Amino acid sequence: MDNRSIGMFDSGVGGLTVLKEVKKELPQENIIYLGDTKRFPYGSKSKESIIQLTQKGMDFLISQDVKAIVIACGTATSQALEEMQKRYRIPIMGIIDSTVQYIKKKENLRKVGVIATAGTIRSNGWEKKLKKEIPEIEVKSKACPLLAPMAEEGWISNEVAKLTIKEYLKDMKNVDALILGCTHYPLFEPLIKEELGDTVEIIHTGKLVSKQLKEMLLEQKEEGESFSANTQIYLTDRETNFIQVASRMLENTEIEKQIKEIQI
Amino acid sequence: MDNRSIGMFDSGVGGLTVLKEVKKELPQENIIYLGDTKRFPYGSKSKESIIQLTQKGMDFLISQDVKAIVIACGTATSQALEEMQKRYRIPIMGIIDSTVQYIKKKENLRKVGVIATAGTIRSNGWEKKLKKEIPEIEVKSKACPLLAPMAEEGWISNEVAKLTIKEYLKDMKNVDALILGCTHYPLFEPLIKEELGDTVEIIHTGKLVSKQLKEMLLEQKEEGESFSANTQIYLTDRETNFIQVASRMLENTEIEKQIKEIQI
Repeated sequence: MDNRSIGMFDSGVGGLTVLKEVKKELPQENIIYLGDTKRFPYGSKSKESIIQLTQKGMDFLISQDVKAIVIACGTATSQALEEMQKRYRIPIMGIIDSTVQYIKKKENLRKVGVIATAGTIRSNGWEKKLKKEIPEIEVKSKACPLLAPMAEEGWISNEVAKLTIKEYLKDMKNVDALILGCTHYPLFEPLIKEELGDTVEIIHTGKLVSKQLKEMLLEQKEEGESFSANTQIYLTDRETNFIQVASRMLENTEIEKQIKEIQI
Repeated sequence: MDNRSIGMFDSGVGGLTVLKEVKKELPQENIIYLGDTKRFPYGSKSKESIIQLTQKGMDFLISQDVKAIVIACGTATSQALEEMQKRYRIPIMGIIDSTVQYIKKKENLRKVGVIATAGTIRSNGWEKKLKKEIPEIEVKSKACPLLAPMAEEGWISNEVAKLTIKEYLKDMKNVDALILGCTHYPLFEPLIKEELGDTVEIIHTGKLVSKQLKEMLLEQKEEGESFSANTQIYLTDRETNFIQVASRMLENTEIEKQIKEIQI
């Protein structure tokens, strides 16, 4: 048993879709979530910038004595995870590996689409990992730089969101599965399903990384058993519409009280 | 005569709409443009963050021996201009004052709309300045956080842009004038005109600040007379789609050669 917290890191509010899954899978764990809202969005930044910013995030979470870290951000996973795993001894996981393993096991998924931010798609991280594990796989990638800002605006079901999804997914009609490669995108799941129909499996990376995290904690006998597990949220800039979007996403109107601002 | 450069500062590519006007108004001036693309967008950040980032920009431009600085960014003008003017001796102008003076002179403009980023609207900077100079004015403000990212994506005339403009401007039908309070927004001018019709005057702040800059340089006898005036562009992060958007905006496919990356 180990009641130290799990650390989670994202550029903003998107990682909360992962937080939600981690809380479902591991209800007795304390969680410290850090959203780097001062520098959101990461999607348009260079690899060097993202490594630098992710490192600041890791340093903060480690200073809070967490037992493991989930990088709940597609861009930071694809651009900075490897570098972070080299630098730090603490277990750090991103949203790619567990998804790749899941697809590898499901033999009916050999033509997959990936949608993500510009930075993630440019890095080619998803395609490289998928092809390394599953050489015969066919991957279609598409950068969707407007979706994360649109989610932060709360436009997740209006006509603009619908048309934007339609435009971004127009070449994804005949894939077996679509990976939501940015943690903001599960917010658009109903629209994406409407656009692609029932034949395309929508892959929500947060669900898969939560299971991976649970397995790791059980294996290392580090699972928490807090009777009333606590979630603390730190933001690098409090004056964003994080609170509004987060309240809706987590169906928790009290969330404001859990939020602190930090300077890193 | 003074052939030192004019410094220009923006969070990204939007300030180029101002640069274009400055070059038209003052073709014999050398210009150094700094786009803080590593931290784009400013619109969702707090006042403190914006002051800190704008100061870094001012320090860099001053280190390049500029004779005056234009903050060609609506958010940085509304959140950080006053503070910068207090700190530095060099003339620094933003995009608000010249626009307020223009409206004050035109007595038929007494009901005006302002569209800008979330940060600018939250600061209430436009409304305060307008009401201070023109007490009887009526101001309608609207935050449009998706427009700057949409411009950076190059979606300035498609159906998504059209619907987004329609949604954001739905309460602006009966104003006398609409101020484009973010320097990205002139890219949407055709759509905005289509939506609001000919009766609403669209106010492009870049044109007005260029005239103010020209007057100041003439007054202080500091105008440049470079035979082949030079524009240098510095970015804090080169790997964005700045080059693509900038080439189209400035109708200059050679722009890539003028761009350098700096670490500040």
